This record gives sequence, C-alpha cells and structure tokens, in this order.
Amino acid sequence: MKYHRIPDETIGRLPLYLRELRLLSQQGRQNIKSGEFADSLGVNSAQIRKDLSYFGAFGTPGVGYKVKKLLRQLCSILKLKNIHKVALVGVGNLGSALLSYSGFAQFGFEIVAAFDSDPNKIGSIRNNVTVEDTSKLSTLKNRGIKFAIIAVPASAAKEIADQLVKAGITGILNFAPSCLVVPKKVKVISIDIAIDLARLPYYSRVTLNK
Amino acid sequence: MKYHRIPDETIGRLPLYLRELRLLSQQGRQNIKSGEFADSLGVNSAQIRKDLSYFGAFGTPGVGYKVKKLLRQLCSILKLKNIHKVALVGVGNLGSALLSYSGFAQFGFEIVAAFDSDPNKIGSIRNNVTVEDTSKLSTLKNRGIKFAIIAVPASAAKEIADQLVKAGITGILNFAPSCLVVPKKVKVISIDIAIDLARLPYYSRVTLNK
Repeated sequence: MKYHRIPDETIGRLPLYLRELRLLSQQGRQNIKSGEFADSLGVNSAQIRKDLSYFGAFGTPGVGYKVKKLLRQLCSILKLKNIHKVALVGVGNLGSALLSYSGFAQFGFEIVAAFDSDPNKIGSIRNNVTVEDTSKLSTLKNRGIKFAIIAVPASAAKEIADQLVKAGITGILNFAPSCLVVPKKVKVISIDIAIDLARLPYYSRVTLNK
Repeated sequence: MKYHRIPDETIGRLPLYLRELRLLSQQGRQNIKSGEFADSLGVNSAQIRKDLSYFGAFGTPGVGYKVKKLLRQLCSILKLKNIHKVALVGVGNLGSALLSYSGFAQFGFEIVAAFDSDPNKIGSIRNNVTVEDTSKLSTLKNRGIKFAIIAVPASAAKEIADQLVKAGITGILNFAPSCLVVPKKVKVISIDIAIDLARLPYYSRVTLNK
C-alpha cells in the first residue's frame, strides 16, 4: 500500500466514517448501503467509495458495507485498535476543558499527563491527572506517550513543540495560534479556533449580495 | 468579483495572512517581500499570490506587500472591519473556555450572549455574560447577533442549529460532533476536536513503516 499517495483529506474523513459505523453497530445494524451511509454523514457516496478505495475493496453491490467488518478495518487503517496515551501541555481554560472532554475516549485516547509552567497549577489534580512542571516534558520519552496536545499561548508554543519532539512525541494536536515547524517524522494538526470564526462573516456577505 | 468561484481553502487562509500582517504592523514594518511573508506563515509564496489574486492585484515586484494597505484590504474582504457580536450556546467545560478565549477579539468578535438549558447555569454570570435559557434563543433576532458558536452535546446540536437559523443567525461555528443540515444561506464551520486527534496515529505508522 502506498501510504504517501493518500490525501490528508481522505485520512481526515476516515474517523468520521468510523464514528458513524460505531453508532450503526450500537443500533444493531449489520449492513448499510453506501447511499444511506453517505446521507447520514452529509457526504456524497462517490467520495466515500473513493476514500475507501485507497485501502482495498470494501462493500458489496446491492448489499452495501458490512458494518462491523468495515469498522474493524478502519480501526486498523487508522491505528486506533489500541489505547493511545496523550499528554496535554497548558492547563488554562481551554486545556482544562480538553482534560475533561469526553469525545476522545471513543477513539481510544486517554490524557494521562498534563503540564503547565504556572507554580499554582503544578501539583494540582484535574480529572484524575496531576499537573506537572513543563520542565519535566523530557520524561514523556520513558512513559510510552507518543501524542500530545498543545494548549499554551502562541508565544510559548514553539518552545513546547521543540521539547515534545525531543521527548519522542510523533503526533501533536496544536491549539496555539502559531505555525509550528517540526521534523518531517512528526505530524502536527492545528486547530485555530479564532481563524475558523473569522471565516464566517465573509460568507454572510456573499449571501447578502446575491 | 465572482465570490462563488473562490475556494473555501483560500478564504480559510486569509485570516492567517491578516493575523501575520497585524503582527508585522505592530512591529513597525512598512513592507514585506512575498518570500519572507510566506516563510513566516509556513506557506509557499505562490499560494499567497494565488489566494490574493482572486481579489485583485496586490504587492509590487521588488518591494512586496504594503503591510497596512494589505491589512485594510483583507479586513474589508473578510468583512472584519466592524465588531461582530456572537452568541454562545452550551456553557459546559468547552463553552466556558470559549467564553474566556482571548483569541476572538483580534478579529473583532465579542461573545455577548450565552445560553444553556441547565437551570443551575441559567442566570449565572460568566466573563461578564449572563447565561440565558436556551428557550430564549429566538430573541437573538432583535439583538443584532448574526453569528453563533455551538458547544452543546451532539444529541442537542441539530435542534439548537434549527433554532439559531430561525433566529436569523447566518454563520455558525460548531463544536458538536454532529453533521448539521442548514439552509444554504447559513454557513456552518465545524471543529471536531476528537476527529482531528484521531488522525494522528495513522501518520505515526507511516513513519515507522518507512
């Protein structure tokens, strides 16, 4: 399989498919036709077929997808079969909310470590996790933690990212409004909340001008 | 100008350019060459020229972009010249963090209303905003609020979105892991935190297999 040929957009959609399949499985569904599956996701069915085609042949004409089988296959492709331990850096308002965010567990993610530079936070317990000093980030190397969430201010993000890379982190979910430069072996996915909000007014003008 | 031809990806990058230009302006920079501008953003300069080309001619060969002028133009294109009032629906952990999120102000957004269905939260004051009953969402119509942030559980998101549309909201930033179906005149931008985290392990496998 030529992983490097698969578009990021495809990889971005697979967890959506996975989540929907899990819902269907919980509802006791055995099969789902590609049209119905697409409708429930708000995507078109050609898109789904194209996304899945990168990984082999899925689904049977007239029958559709076998829910449990596709679920297992997507878990395997996305490497979500096991629990992944995650470190959180920055326990401010957003970081605290992420510590208690219930959506991570469905994909097997568990935030098991939290770091902050504020002496008033270090040592406190949030959601069963003891906040550690950011100077201890290097310990991640020996704790089997490969993923990290950055929720520090923009001014601190680059330094934190460098330390995470040194500690062997291979994937970073970055909430800091900062462009992180990391080695190629490390994947950074950035969520920039303010930027996404800032896109909305443009579209409202388009409507008004119609 | 043919707004409908401009890719969403371009509109998504313009606020990034705007934020960087504001930093440059604060540093007293008058001009910036497109290569330097691109480097500071981690984008390539052809991409920036292409994005801006949809809106006219910007920059001068050998001189680059005039920082303040381009800043004004981008503010105008994105309709970010005025303050935009925003309503927040769902004052849980994430909603509370968003209420105090400092990144919105730089683009002129101000959360002036907050709603929740929990009687224990209704009437409480968070970040100078009094939490109102979600049954009062219809009042947004008369309050000059056109944008809303949804931070409720997935099960409640569709109903809330319908009510927001009825109340005249034209743009929604949606944090609920739910696919919202709204009329075409309403723009929804979804941020799905768990889905983004779920993409990371895939890339870490690609590296290991190399």
